[in-house]
Amino acid sequence: MKKYYAGLDLGGTFVKGGIVDEEGKILVKDKIPTGRERPYTEIAADMARLVKDLAVRAGLAEGQLAGVGIGSPGLIDAENGVIVYSNNIRWENVPLCGAVREQLGVPVCITNDANAAALGEHFCGAGKKFGSMVFITLGTGVGGGIIVDGKILSGATGSGGEIGHIHVRDEETEHCNCGGKGCLEQVASATGIAREARRVLAADETPSAMRRFEDHISAKNVLDCAKSGDALALQVTETVGRYLGLACAQIALTVDPEAFVIGGGVSRAGQFLIDVIQKYYDNYVAISANKGVLTLAKLGNDAGIYGAARLVL
Amino acid sequence: MKKYYAGLDLGGTFVKGGIVDEEGKILVKDKIPTGRERPYTEIAADMARLVKDLAVRAGLAEGQLAGVGIGSPGLIDAENGVIVYSNNIRWENVPLCGAVREQLGVPVCITNDANAAALGEHFCGAGKKFGSMVFITLGTGVGGGIIVDGKILSGATGSGGEIGHIHVRDEETEHCNCGGKGCLEQVASATGIAREARRVLAADETPSAMRRFEDHISAKNVLDCAKSGDALALQVTETVGRYLGLACAQIALTVDPEAFVIGGGVSRAGQFLIDVIQKYYDNYVAISANKGVLTLAKLGNDAGIYGAARLVL
Repeated sequence: MKKYYAGLDLGGTFVKGGIVDEEGKILVKDKIPTGRERPYTEIAADMARLVKDLAVRAGLAEGQLAGVGIGSPGLIDAENGVIVYSNNIRWENVPLCGAVREQLGVPVCITNDANAAALGEHFCGAGKKFGSMVFITLGTGVGGGIIVDGKILSGATGSGGEIGHIHVRDEETEHCNCGGKGCLEQVASATGIAREARRVLAADETPSAMRRFEDHISAKNVLDCAKSGDALALQVTETVGRYLGLACAQIALTVDPEAFVIGGGVSRAGQFLIDVIQKYYDNYVAISANKGVLTLAKLGNDAGIYGAARLVL
Repeated sequence: MKKYYAGLDLGGTFVKGGIVDEEGKILVKDKIPTGRERPYTEIAADMARLVKDLAVRAGLAEGQLAGVGIGSPGLIDAENGVIVYSNNIRWENVPLCGAVREQLGVPVCITNDANAAALGEHFCGAGKKFGSMVFITLGTGVGGGIIVDGKILSGATGSGGEIGHIHVRDEETEHCNCGGKGCLEQVASATGIAREARRVLAADETPSAMRRFEDHISAKNVLDCAKSGDALALQVTETVGRYLGLACAQIALTVDPEAFVIGGGVSRAGQFLIDVIQKYYDNYVAISANKGVLTLAKLGNDAGIYGAARLVL
């Protein structure tokens, strides 16, 4: 009897889920609202219901669902199936795996959402042909997941791959969410890129197509303007690429991966962005031996579902 | 019959060797000149002779020597037992393991010298109680070795833990040996610290105890003067500690190790140096979860012998 695996991607707004087969194909997928203000037991019950519903829609027979994997925001204690802390859902020490397992009676595993996306890209996406890779997601924040020998490098405290908080910029004046200053996330997240653009526009009177967006400017606006050759937008893009290139170089000289896979909303800017990162990356890694390839993620929003399923596969 | 292991630490000037038992005790050790200008086959023959000699002196019976490990400078292809490139001994693609194995008829393994020292500290030194650790050696250069789950993180191209070439300083004007600019090694190696002191002394007319050493000033002189409260020497020490703290923070946010073990000649400055590094490290890692302990190495020059032996143990 063929086995199937459920992957759940827990977010602050939606829980996305899918049924994945052993070859890494999603049979069905769907999403439900998280309702993050509710007690965790209710959310766990909804997650279990989503899995049951998906299993029915995929035509799974009794016993064919072999396990459930969860990708969750926050700091995760994978061994005990606990979300130690999540700023996003405002949870502390929530034993989510146990609560979902109780409803379904199959093994339930959990990892950080960026780690899940990393596993997903490694399993079926841009990282498929690489034995080791670093996934960097550029979204509201900057997350990372490191895969060595096919496994997540989760670190001693589950904080392996927390590359959004690598310090890259000494001149930063504002504090990051983490309490530090000058974190990669402050300049390379969607939020950070928009903020950078507002700063540049305020400090410089050069005409710029970015001005029409006023304070509502987004990272997408900035990168679109940069692609059209707007000087100030290009300046912002160079700053973003420089610090991403620096962070990739630091990681290359530490874990020496075969590839860096860049995902998240900001990565929709495509090869244009990769090229800018590459320029600085090459400059910061002078040793010729260890130059992991820089490449775009392939799975988009489904990476978390694939990777979560991979946890139990 | 009890088994024993030989550890060889190949350096530009000396080959150090020792016979190590399964509990990680060195029975005998010795060193011979490397004679690095000679063909590698001659050096390999001398290394094998050193092992035979040590085995006799340790009273090993026929068949009790179970293997030989080698720590070598340069970029190593461990799988094929080849020194891909060594700036120190000026070797390229030297199949050293095979040459030593031919003479001894036992398994021979090889790793980078910093990795060997890391393994040694993890096996019997300061890293003994930690499952994962990062070893940083501050000598003529800056080397590193990362241990995860008891094994070296060697990376895709053998350049894992090449932390001496992490970029830390934008304002650097000179080039590093690696071709880059602003590498950790340029400021935190013994050479780098002495150079930093010369720069500070040239740029500032404040009286300083460091001036009596003139251009011959060493890292030890600088750190001794700093311990005595010399203002300019303290300024240099803060710079060194700051960039080491920054590099440790970047590594913590990438691999999240349980400990950082600081070794090499510069680390003889002791807890005084650790305290300065710690101050900056704490500042650069704002996330509370992943704070590996900073501690001094314990095995001194023997770390390489222990670690090389550990390779085959």
